[in-house]
Amino acid sequence: MINLTQQSYIAGTWLAPQGSVFQAQDPATLDLLAQHHSCQQNEVEQALQAATCAFPAFSQTSISARAAFLEAIALEIEALGEQLLNVCNQETGLGIPRLTGERGRTTGQIRAFATIVKNSSWVQASIDTADAQRQPVPKPDLRKLLKPLGPVAVFGASNFPFAFGTLGGDTISALASGNPVIVKGHPSHPASNELFASVMDKAIAKSGMPKGVFSLLQGNTISLSIELVTHPLTQAVGFTGSLNAGRAIMDAVARRTKPIPVYAEMGSVNPVFMTHNALLQSGASIAQNLANSVCLGTGQFCTSPGVVVIQKNPVFVSLVAQGMDKNPRNLLLNQGIGKAFAQGVKQFLHYPEVNWVNSNNQALEPSIQPANIVLTASAATFLANPDLQHEVFGPATLIVECDNEQEFIAIAQALDGNLTASIHTTEQDTALVKSLMAELEQKVGRIIFNGFPTGVEVCGSQNHGGPYPSSSVASSTSVGIDAIYRFVRFVSYQDTPNNLLPVELQNSNPLNIMRRINGAFTTDPITK
Amino acid sequence: MINLTQQSYIAGTWLAPQGSVFQAQDPATLDLLAQHHSCQQNEVEQALQAATCAFPAFSQTSISARAAFLEAIALEIEALGEQLLNVCNQETGLGIPRLTGERGRTTGQIRAFATIVKNSSWVQASIDTADAQRQPVPKPDLRKLLKPLGPVAVFGASNFPFAFGTLGGDTISALASGNPVIVKGHPSHPASNELFASVMDKAIAKSGMPKGVFSLLQGNTISLSIELVTHPLTQAVGFTGSLNAGRAIMDAVARRTKPIPVYAEMGSVNPVFMTHNALLQSGASIAQNLANSVCLGTGQFCTSPGVVVIQKNPVFVSLVAQGMDKNPRNLLLNQGIGKAFAQGVKQFLHYPEVNWVNSNNQALEPSIQPANIVLTASAATFLANPDLQHEVFGPATLIVECDNEQEFIAIAQALDGNLTASIHTTEQDTALVKSLMAELEQKVGRIIFNGFPTGVEVCGSQNHGGPYPSSSVASSTSVGIDAIYRFVRFVSYQDTPNNLLPVELQNSNPLNIMRRINGAFTTDPITK
Repeated sequence: MINLTQQSYIAGTWLAPQGSVFQAQDPATLDLLAQHHSCQQNEVEQALQAATCAFPAFSQTSISARAAFLEAIALEIEALGEQLLNVCNQETGLGIPRLTGERGRTTGQIRAFATIVKNSSWVQASIDTADAQRQPVPKPDLRKLLKPLGPVAVFGASNFPFAFGTLGGDTISALASGNPVIVKGHPSHPASNELFASVMDKAIAKSGMPKGVFSLLQGNTISLSIELVTHPLTQAVGFTGSLNAGRAIMDAVARRTKPIPVYAEMGSVNPVFMTHNALLQSGASIAQNLANSVCLGTGQFCTSPGVVVIQKNPVFVSLVAQGMDKNPRNLLLNQGIGKAFAQGVKQFLHYPEVNWVNSNNQALEPSIQPANIVLTASAATFLANPDLQHEVFGPATLIVECDNEQEFIAIAQALDGNLTASIHTTEQDTALVKSLMAELEQKVGRIIFNGFPTGVEVCGSQNHGGPYPSSSVASSTSVGIDAIYRFVRFVSYQDTPNNLLPVELQNSNPLNIMRRINGAFTTDPITK
Repeated sequence: MINLTQQSYIAGTWLAPQGSVFQAQDPATLDLLAQHHSCQQNEVEQALQAATCAFPAFSQTSISARAAFLEAIALEIEALGEQLLNVCNQETGLGIPRLTGERGRTTGQIRAFATIVKNSSWVQASIDTADAQRQPVPKPDLRKLLKPLGPVAVFGASNFPFAFGTLGGDTISALASGNPVIVKGHPSHPASNELFASVMDKAIAKSGMPKGVFSLLQGNTISLSIELVTHPLTQAVGFTGSLNAGRAIMDAVARRTKPIPVYAEMGSVNPVFMTHNALLQSGASIAQNLANSVCLGTGQFCTSPGVVVIQKNPVFVSLVAQGMDKNPRNLLLNQGIGKAFAQGVKQFLHYPEVNWVNSNNQALEPSIQPANIVLTASAATFLANPDLQHEVFGPATLIVECDNEQEFIAIAQALDGNLTASIHTTEQDTALVKSLMAELEQKVGRIIFNGFPTGVEVCGSQNHGGPYPSSSVASSTSVGIDAIYRFVRFVSYQDTPNNLLPVELQNSNPLNIMRRINGAFTTDPITK
């Protein structure tokens, strides 16, 4: 058992910050939990100085040492055993089964990054050999590979305290590519953050990594976040959370003397299109699966299906409403989310054309355990009111009823950027679906057939990112091994002596990795 | 011979904009050339509407059609013959031999992109196949590839009117990956821009491409640039030019409701470190080659070596000064650059510790044909005054004299972001060079051994980009085939019927391209 002390962790040292007090809340009991203090400018400075000092040594660790470090992190997470699950459940109310699954996903992705590091091909080594005879000028020898950027600031999400939390995908992908990390711990689960810092303390010691490679700054102040992302030593930012918070960070970074990359994964309503034929064929099961997907995790997923587009079909709508009513009322993460959820639904209901179809005479009141809500609106109403595309974070979905399927295209064209879009269809709909896909490919990062966007597979072909506002850099993914391509940039070496080249670029290919040599992919060495 | 009309070109139509008048100047005679009018909001709107309409069809052109389009562009450039060289030489004073070489580089890079398009592996197809038996949940089929973004706004550079101009690397890499392009023509060579628009008019007609795929907006107003990059239909920006102009565009884009990527390649001073041993061994030839590199293109290269770091060596300094004096005084592109050059050198000379070693009692006056200038400063002066890292665009270099080679490290640590750094060294300097490289890898995009940064090789292992302020996105290159990775993002397809997948992702691999299947690279088809 780890003895929790409500401290922050900076480069190997536990310390008690002196900033304002904050407390997480147990969603099940509404009890306030242990008092923490926010870090301030001084702690940001310490963490960044230490991370900057640690960077050269850490970025040059051997691939076996870095992979062993990642594997040690996974083992130490598992070694926390039930304490991690219980502490986090008290802070989040997500339930032990869900947290057990999320822990498995988290250690699984850590080990996947360890494997990628060992393989080493991720550095995208490229070599063009010299040609002294070339006319009109000799061709130089050029070789390039990806290198880490330096200290990365990570903001974890409240809704995935493990997989997108203190030791989630952002932190691990940054460490995997050789960057020190400073986590701003999410204030809604500080004790969980502290347990993860204890994991890092052990993993760093066991692997002999420089202590500055990781810091955890606890806090709930905006000033702490802004200090961290605007500090000159911060080289990049990884963020998962709301559009408002993400955009505030983007804007602060854009005002820096030296701007840096911000990889923010923000809101999404994940539209789901369902053809008339698909609902004819299997409307009942689609309705039930939709209801389950909306209610999963109390709707607190960035991939929760918030907008459903159908050709008018009252039977289907009522099946969805029944499915939602059958799902239990579950806990939200905190009272703030409960308040925002009620407020968000209320804003939709301000439009007289928006109906709450499963209201059952319930009043809409802020609650940490809200009703599961199905709204409907006509396509015309949806198209006329872009506000209806705002994400309502929680168990609600808006069914948009079209007069005919041709309206699907207009709706797709009117969509904002999203992480995903889904299409439920049959083989009879090919022409419609092709037109729809052509629009959706411009609006989203992932298109799903006959399924729902929740349950994000962690693999190389996953893309979890999409046009703004769903993410700040649509060309990157925050899930899957290709997330390693965010906190890196190419460095090219011209006519460099073999012994001074990074090992991945040396003639003999000592790591036996896949390289692009004069345009062709090969693991062959270069023989001169 | 093309009959020049001083018009802009919007989606297949030539038109006379009504905005303010501007004229380029012949640097050799100082004559003002033909009057042009700037485009305004109306033309921006027209061009973007047309580009947006053209996007779906253009992005779905077959690879052979798109490659043929690029090849037609190269052929039409060559078909302009001497008219292009003469018109551009009158506008830029760069000289026929240099422009002939740059034309070859430009058509060469267009054909290199055509080859990449034909090969199709650039889309980075990745496939993870389904596993219905996996526990606890079945694994879906996921496949992803890179897709174009939509209309790209391109701002060409004055100093490379061909290779980084209207049909330079930004435009061609954007077209290659399937994006329509709107070029804001550089106002210092509008007739050259017009000739390139005539090239596109012919190439589009011959290849049957949609007309909206290319527009040229002539103009010299800031409002035109800002209108173009802040228009909601613009999806990305490519820019080559000064830090001030590039940052203004970055800032305008950061204020958009929906931010978009800006790939700006801006200033650089390209530090060159020379060890004592290297100068002992071949100081005379290094001095001559340095002088030639600084004077190449009248110093108007983003890779011009603006800072040289040596251990104090008066003999070497005087050899560089002699080399610079032997180089002829050449023409700058325009009087504005002449004024800025004199002003920049003057600002350095405000520091009493900065010496103009080859002044020969010349006065420093704004001139379109300036002296080739060698300045010196001590390491202490350089370290104390970050202003001495500002780029002086033109034929000048600042030699920083250290007391010993250990000061090289402090200077490397103090450097801003740069496109390149160079090291002249011998085998005796390995320890020093290793320390120096560790610092420079954090500051630059390319490290060159025993050579100079000018003469940028166009190949897959080139990296032309570096930390801010040398570029806005250090992880991208604007030279070489990998420049194609800028105006694209991944789209992932989950459980998608084979006939609805992009051809690159279909089971049979009809294009026979390299794909990553379940983590391994292969050209094999998928057999189910």
